[in-house]
Amino acid sequence: MAKYVYDFSEGGMDQKDLLGGKGANLAEMTGLGMPVPPGFIISTDACRAFLAEGKEPAGLADEVGEHLARLEKERGKTLGDPDDPLLVSVRSGAKFSMPGMMETVLNVGLNDESVKGLAKVAGGDERFAYDSYRRLLQMFGSTVLGIESSEFAEVLDALKTQRGTKADLDLTADDLRGLVESYKDVIREHAGGDFPQDPREQLDMAVLAVFDSWNTDRARLYRRQEQIPDDLGTAVNICTMVYGNGGDDSGTGVAFTRDPATGAQGVYGDYLVNAQGEDVVAGIRNTVPLADLEQIDKAAYDELIDIMDRLEKHYKDLCDIEFTVEHGKLWMLQTRVGKRTAEAAFRIAHSFAEEGLIDLDEAVNRVTGAQLAQLMFPRFDDKAERHLIGEGMNASPGAAVGKAVFDSPTAVEWAAKGEDVILVRRTTTPDDLSGMVAATGILTSRGGKTSHAAVVARGMGRTCVCGADELEIDFEARKFTAADGTVIGEGDLISIDGTTGEIFEGAVEVMDSVVVRYFEGDETAAGDELVRAVTALMEHADGERRLAVRANADTPEDAARARRFGAQGIGLCRTEHMFLGDRRELVEHLILAETPEQQHEALDALLPLQREDFVGILEAMDGLPVTIRLIDPPLHEFLPDYTELAVRVAHEEEHGTDEPRTHKLLDAVKRLHEENPMLGLRGVRLGIVIPGLFKMQARAILEATAARIHEGGDPQPEIMIPLVAASQEFELMKAEVISVAGEVQKETNAKLAFKIGTMIELPRAVMVADKIAESAEFFSFGTNDLTQMTWGFSRDDVEASFFSTYLDKGIFPVSPFESLDVDGVGALVAMAVSKGRKVRPDLHLGVCGEHGGDPDSIHFFDSVGLDYVSCSPYRVPVARLEAGRSAGTGSDSR
Amino acid sequence: MAKYVYDFSEGGMDQKDLLGGKGANLAEMTGLGMPVPPGFIISTDACRAFLAEGKEPAGLADEVGEHLARLEKERGKTLGDPDDPLLVSVRSGAKFSMPGMMETVLNVGLNDESVKGLAKVAGGDERFAYDSYRRLLQMFGSTVLGIESSEFAEVLDALKTQRGTKADLDLTADDLRGLVESYKDVIREHAGGDFPQDPREQLDMAVLAVFDSWNTDRARLYRRQEQIPDDLGTAVNICTMVYGNGGDDSGTGVAFTRDPATGAQGVYGDYLVNAQGEDVVAGIRNTVPLADLEQIDKAAYDELIDIMDRLEKHYKDLCDIEFTVEHGKLWMLQTRVGKRTAEAAFRIAHSFAEEGLIDLDEAVNRVTGAQLAQLMFPRFDDKAERHLIGEGMNASPGAAVGKAVFDSPTAVEWAAKGEDVILVRRTTTPDDLSGMVAATGILTSRGGKTSHAAVVARGMGRTCVCGADELEIDFEARKFTAADGTVIGEGDLISIDGTTGEIFEGAVEVMDSVVVRYFEGDETAAGDELVRAVTALMEHADGERRLAVRANADTPEDAARARRFGAQGIGLCRTEHMFLGDRRELVEHLILAETPEQQHEALDALLPLQREDFVGILEAMDGLPVTIRLIDPPLHEFLPDYTELAVRVAHEEEHGTDEPRTHKLLDAVKRLHEENPMLGLRGVRLGIVIPGLFKMQARAILEATAARIHEGGDPQPEIMIPLVAASQEFELMKAEVISVAGEVQKETNAKLAFKIGTMIELPRAVMVADKIAESAEFFSFGTNDLTQMTWGFSRDDVEASFFSTYLDKGIFPVSPFESLDVDGVGALVAMAVSKGRKVRPDLHLGVCGEHGGDPDSIHFFDSVGLDYVSCSPYRVPVARLEAGRSAGTGSDSR
Repeated sequence: MAKYVYDFSEGGMDQKDLLGGKGANLAEMTGLGMPVPPGFIISTDACRAFLAEGKEPAGLADEVGEHLARLEKERGKTLGDPDDPLLVSVRSGAKFSMPGMMETVLNVGLNDESVKGLAKVAGGDERFAYDSYRRLLQMFGSTVLGIESSEFAEVLDALKTQRGTKADLDLTADDLRGLVESYKDVIREHAGGDFPQDPREQLDMAVLAVFDSWNTDRARLYRRQEQIPDDLGTAVNICTMVYGNGGDDSGTGVAFTRDPATGAQGVYGDYLVNAQGEDVVAGIRNTVPLADLEQIDKAAYDELIDIMDRLEKHYKDLCDIEFTVEHGKLWMLQTRVGKRTAEAAFRIAHSFAEEGLIDLDEAVNRVTGAQLAQLMFPRFDDKAERHLIGEGMNASPGAAVGKAVFDSPTAVEWAAKGEDVILVRRTTTPDDLSGMVAATGILTSRGGKTSHAAVVARGMGRTCVCGADELEIDFEARKFTAADGTVIGEGDLISIDGTTGEIFEGAVEVMDSVVVRYFEGDETAAGDELVRAVTALMEHADGERRLAVRANADTPEDAARARRFGAQGIGLCRTEHMFLGDRRELVEHLILAETPEQQHEALDALLPLQREDFVGILEAMDGLPVTIRLIDPPLHEFLPDYTELAVRVAHEEEHGTDEPRTHKLLDAVKRLHEENPMLGLRGVRLGIVIPGLFKMQARAILEATAARIHEGGDPQPEIMIPLVAASQEFELMKAEVISVAGEVQKETNAKLAFKIGTMIELPRAVMVADKIAESAEFFSFGTNDLTQMTWGFSRDDVEASFFSTYLDKGIFPVSPFESLDVDGVGALVAMAVSKGRKVRPDLHLGVCGEHGGDPDSIHFFDSVGLDYVSCSPYRVPVARLEAGRSAGTGSDSR
Repeated sequence: MAKYVYDFSEGGMDQKDLLGGKGANLAEMTGLGMPVPPGFIISTDACRAFLAEGKEPAGLADEVGEHLARLEKERGKTLGDPDDPLLVSVRSGAKFSMPGMMETVLNVGLNDESVKGLAKVAGGDERFAYDSYRRLLQMFGSTVLGIESSEFAEVLDALKTQRGTKADLDLTADDLRGLVESYKDVIREHAGGDFPQDPREQLDMAVLAVFDSWNTDRARLYRRQEQIPDDLGTAVNICTMVYGNGGDDSGTGVAFTRDPATGAQGVYGDYLVNAQGEDVVAGIRNTVPLADLEQIDKAAYDELIDIMDRLEKHYKDLCDIEFTVEHGKLWMLQTRVGKRTAEAAFRIAHSFAEEGLIDLDEAVNRVTGAQLAQLMFPRFDDKAERHLIGEGMNASPGAAVGKAVFDSPTAVEWAAKGEDVILVRRTTTPDDLSGMVAATGILTSRGGKTSHAAVVARGMGRTCVCGADELEIDFEARKFTAADGTVIGEGDLISIDGTTGEIFEGAVEVMDSVVVRYFEGDETAAGDELVRAVTALMEHADGERRLAVRANADTPEDAARARRFGAQGIGLCRTEHMFLGDRRELVEHLILAETPEQQHEALDALLPLQREDFVGILEAMDGLPVTIRLIDPPLHEFLPDYTELAVRVAHEEEHGTDEPRTHKLLDAVKRLHEENPMLGLRGVRLGIVIPGLFKMQARAILEATAARIHEGGDPQPEIMIPLVAASQEFELMKAEVISVAGEVQKETNAKLAFKIGTMIELPRAVMVADKIAESAEFFSFGTNDLTQMTWGFSRDDVEASFFSTYLDKGIFPVSPFESLDVDGVGALVAMAVSKGRKVRPDLHLGVCGEHGGDPDSIHFFDSVGLDYVSCSPYRVPVARLEAGRSAGTGSDSR
């Protein structure tokens, strides 16, 4: 017979799989001799058996009976005894905290008889007894019997109105006795039966209701979003009730062993006299700071402080605690490793390491790249004036300030005039894409972190707060009203914090991240506590990591910044950006060329300009490798948009103002127009079809290299051929580059050293990676394109049109453009690594897609043996940290 | 020491690798005791050594010397002896015939002295001796010394003009003696030295020139196009000269053991009295039919007929023969398995099998699907009047008749008026795409089978003749002039035969293929010899093959035709075609729907129409499986083109004639517009994002199935979900279909049986094929899309823009859309097969991309274990034949 039930004294903190998080920690505290109200845990095994069989597993009832009997014996009370009842709480407790589930039923064991016994043992306090009973009815009714909690709230409100009060405490014992009857009526009406008077029946029903709550839609959705497996099940904690609401010598509180906002040392928490835990959460009365407890009850306070100290040393981490004082006696109701802000995470990990509680490996493991990234965003100045008018979900980080606009056309129009705008919508749809592009921030009143607005905003790097459902938006009137009555009309300034989800009236002052200021060389930032913590942990991560970190940078300025941020070279320098701006005209000449001579002239004109670009970049990255990708995008990207031009020409023809040049341009655009430019004439195909194009670029790179050598520099260029699908393509282009190198070497008399390699960004390149590796010296995985081709969708087209639906339905847990799809794209990367290295064991391998800066993906790239990741300059510190964490602790980035 | 040289008596027909095709067959005939002029072969080993080392391999000269000495001894003559010279021919001969290489130098051994000896032993025939000498000079000059042959032709033409004659035979011995001197001057002038008088030096130079010719650009290009490996090398044949030009008792001829055009039995060939072989090829004089030789020289004729009979029985195939009669003595100069037309291939293979020379396995192996495909194209009526005005390359098969047009805009304009046009261009470029689409046929005067015109025409299935370089095209005057002076102006009718490369003036009558007529049930075709051969071989192939063959068909008519052609079901029924025509308006309603209700209404209106479609198809394929793909293309394909509509709206706005409906349409088109529709919202994504869409289609299929059951039919629908990338997508849609099936079953009371599976057309589906196979009952490989995603190019966009360059540069030997790319796409197919079958051993596997009808690809699909291929109805017989060949003989489709 399986064992399903465990006393608190039987388990420990390592048994979260079996006992759930809450139960394991209660057991741990019990084992440490801390004052935990006795109780027992029904294990997750029981829940899984229940879910599999669809009924209570055999033997569970008996086992519960045995543990209950032992508890009754220990406490000298019987569950629901009419004279002196044992009362218990029933709480769900899964391995991972799941706010989407049923949480708690208190006071199980009360009924029409035992309520009197409770009053008696509480010194005749009938008010307390009936208040406890009505709480049981309310919680049991809503969480076990599934009645809307508003049904109970309405009855309570009506009573309070009748009594002319707003506070529960003003209700008398008689009032509450009446309320109990009203609640019983509500239950009878909505549940089709009476509230069960049998205490054991109450207990059993509550336990099964907890099991059932594992599979509610809300719980499933939550798990899908948090990537929690569906087959874990939940444990149930049965715990003797203790009461903080039995008088002024009682109370309840929550505490943190350090400040969870900043990580500063000291005791943080709140205490509420004469109250139960739910009252603190409900915020019905004002709490006092925890420190005040010292005055209220020094003995309890001292014991608590001692316990907190022991817990922190025992858990070696910030602990989050719930406790109750019952007539002067301290009871520990819960502890767990506490949630904290990104800043606190760094400071706490660093300080624990300095205190010698943990080593630096562990400290680095306790902070994440995602947290570091948060710390690097600009944020609202702590000291600035601000008026919080609402809060939503922190869907895409950053601090954005702008004028509120209520539709996309207005956003586009105002942005075009140079205004910063915040697009405010109930929800966004693909139609809003242009508005989202134009806005600096997006605010919605509906939808969660996988809503259209959230997904698209993250994809575009726009600040976004979503699901701020307290805002009442009136689109007709072009305004919204906050919960506090503040009205924001179109054109009024607002500020949104995508990192916290806060919404402010007016323009809150934005300040740069102190961490970024430090990296950028601001001496005044060096003494900051946070900076000290970050640099200490980064230094350790740098020492541990196997992966090098490079940056994607196209200009000398970006290259220099990347270097300040710790980049060990450039992994992707995109040359097409050098074809824009005032050089666009030269590119137009190249495209419109009608003879090889004209084509040649256009290329010749571009050569010196490209060369200067490369000299600057090689100089900024002197001594470090610079991977330069030859031109990749289709040529028509350098020409006007087809449809716009067609409309313009049609218009000009109407008015007889059309010019031959425009017609010629339209012809070229039409000729180069592709139904699917992503799948068209681009990358190495351009190099093969347009003679001289890649040669010109190779010459510019190699002439720049020679110039740098003559200037005494140490240029380390790596020439990268994009979009290779077949080894023959690479070999043809390599031969051209080698021949140009010979010419430049002769002309400049410089000893040129460079590498030549390719991007792996097409599935076919993966399949023939062994062939390609015969002549390529390095591979750089272009995981953006590889993701597009592997899934068969283009980011620009589909992120807006169906990703939010896909995330909602759990088809993928996170956009494969945010975090590498390990099963599909990752499997291809691993295959190319293995094929390539088989042929060329010293093949240099890196990644230059945006995944190079994504924490999860970095751990994957480390695990398959890449040599480096490359990401945007601002992501370099994140990548350094995650590469260190990956080296130290394996493959989990959370 | 390696052995490099072999006497004819040492080798045999199985040694083509070592001795080349020509040498191995000469050796075989020698071994059979047939009259072959004695000689020896320098092996391909020697050529490979020469190419590797860059110089004549050690020992070769000595070995040639030994064999030469033996030959001289046997013939009792010395090479170049001034009194009675031994003369030899030097011919290249690779394993595969390669017209791109240097072929022949005759009369090696003649010089200023030995020419007199030759005259002497020829009974004082100085004319013959000097004619032979000038031929040596001409061939040696052009093929060994690399002088343009026109240099020699000009001198000869000048001489003939001077003598007032057009025939070589009218030139006297003195004329030819003078010509020898002129030719020697040409050589001195262009080769920078005198013609070598040393006979052995002539021989050695000729041998090395043959080796060198292996690597000319022309030869390399030819090999690339024919997929002949570059490392084979060529052999060189040194053969005693015999002369057919020594008088009227001499002559030369070519012969076939059966009619290579039709395969009919009997002796076919041409004979030319008093001539050397090159004269026959040059067509300088008219030949007589081979049968006439019986009158001219009965002994030689009888011996030849006897030898031909022995050869055919020995080679068990049609033989192609070259021979010479020298003063009444028959000499065999060459034999090989003869080339033949598609018709002859079938009739010969069938007849050899009937004669018991080969078995049916071998007979089926001797015909190809490509030949069968040729036989199924309409062709010009043999009996129709025709005037041949030129010939080019048979670039894309078919028979096309239309008015000549000389540019693409005209082609488009005339085609729009309902005219059939043939687009005539020097070459085509991507700019001509619209014209090529509009034309029924394409004719170019430049470029080969990998030219832009050829590649694009094959891709589109347009008839194309290219590289017809005798046509003089005058674009200014919009006309072309044929070699015979015929002038074709714009609008004049021409006919082009893409199967033969012929170009005719006027409209030649086109007739349907007798094979197709037979399949279509025309009784009168059953007796045709070709039909008898085809059906006999097809029957054998059907008995042998493991692969089933289905058809892609979207209408009852196509389904019925496919069945007549032998299809064993439908592998791909595209439902989107059912959304076109007069139903487009309903689809517009669906797309423009603004509420779920409107969307629902639109779907409800489509349901009965779709159901009727399915009833018809299931009826046509009663008892056989019908795989129906739910809607795949992006919805905007059902709306007007974005750019055209934008221009129209702009125009209407100018004139104030714009309507709200057009604006609404433009809005919808703009909203649905995708930069890369191929990578957008399509396939299963539509099913997930538009609630009810796939459900409506599933309901239509299942209601049709129920209706067929109630009519007593045996419907076997298979529902296919397109564009699946993740198992979750499939599972969501499968659940919808299963739930609809439950409803329909209840409503109709019919016992519904159906399969549900998916297309594998995205690389990601391959990587997770095992996951998908857990719930999918079948996979159908969509190799068109899989090729597009794997290579990262879209057929529509790139075939025109760079495929011809890619084929020319040998990046791929054939478009991966024509024949499956085995290394890339094929490897993915094999991976999905293995992953899928591991999870579900009875997983049903097929292919429904266009590769399903391509011979090479069919052999590959057979080799990886698919269950069926599906192709267009007209390709079904081709697929049946190739599936049979693959089962019988392995994996080569040629």
